[in-house]
Amino acid sequence: MLKVEHIGIAVQSLSGSIPLFESLLNTECYKKENVASEKVITAFFRQGDTKIELLESETEDGVIKKFIDKKGEGIHHIAFEVTDINQEMERLEKAGFILLNQTPKRGADNKLVCFIHPKTANGVLIELCQEIKDPL
Amino acid sequence: MLKVEHIGIAVQSLSGSIPLFESLLNTECYKKENVASEKVITAFFRQGDTKIELLESETEDGVIKKFIDKKGEGIHHIAFEVTDINQEMERLEKAGFILLNQTPKRGADNKLVCFIHPKTANGVLIELCQEIKDPL
Repeated sequence: MLKVEHIGIAVQSLSGSIPLFESLLNTECYKKENVASEKVITAFFRQGDTKIELLESETEDGVIKKFIDKKGEGIHHIAFEVTDINQEMERLEKAGFILLNQTPKRGADNKLVCFIHPKTANGVLIELCQEIKDPL
Repeated sequence: MLKVEHIGIAVQSLSGSIPLFESLLNTECYKKENVASEKVITAFFRQGDTKIELLESETEDGVIKKFIDKKGEGIHHIAFEVTDINQEMERLEKAGFILLNQTPKRGADNKLVCFIHPKTANGVLIELCQEIKDPL
């Protein structure tokens, strides 16, 4: 793992939470992006070498909506940047961690991602992510 | 705010969670430290420019024990490094955030810290921290 790439925070409404986090972090939201595969809209803030990613559900049956219904708004996951996501997935599965997707999928912010089940990681939902390079 | 200094994770037992996170993060725990004021034992891992801090309660009535009883093991707080903690506390209080301590207190890892109430920050417990410099 190279670094904490971002921290994902589940929010009810970006329209309320973007100004709140701009005030809290004293920096502007620099990007919003829809992630169709996850049915979420995301908003990003830079903090040093790491990002804060706010997540609003686009649907009533999305994972973020379900998370908020169960636990309330708050920290949803930690994402770690990796050099080779397939290699890290193989290493972690051998070490006993349960992967939530068996092949990397397309996430926000031009990344390939894989999630690790929180029950194998002390209750923490972990995301592995690798930047998608342009084809040669 | 300068960067995400660390992410705090509440765990039942460091003896089980240190090897788990060493395996997950593929790096060794480099420090353990008791923090008397918070009644916790902490364990640190480096991830790029940020740290992962595991927190085990030393007592039955500590904040980490109460957190785990209520929510289970998982992410407890995000800590942001600041240049001048008193100035940031004043700025945030004026902006409507509720501070959990009115003067900075001594935290783990040679830091002055202040916490912000999660109810004013979308359910996220925020820590501000500033490194304590040696006296001249």
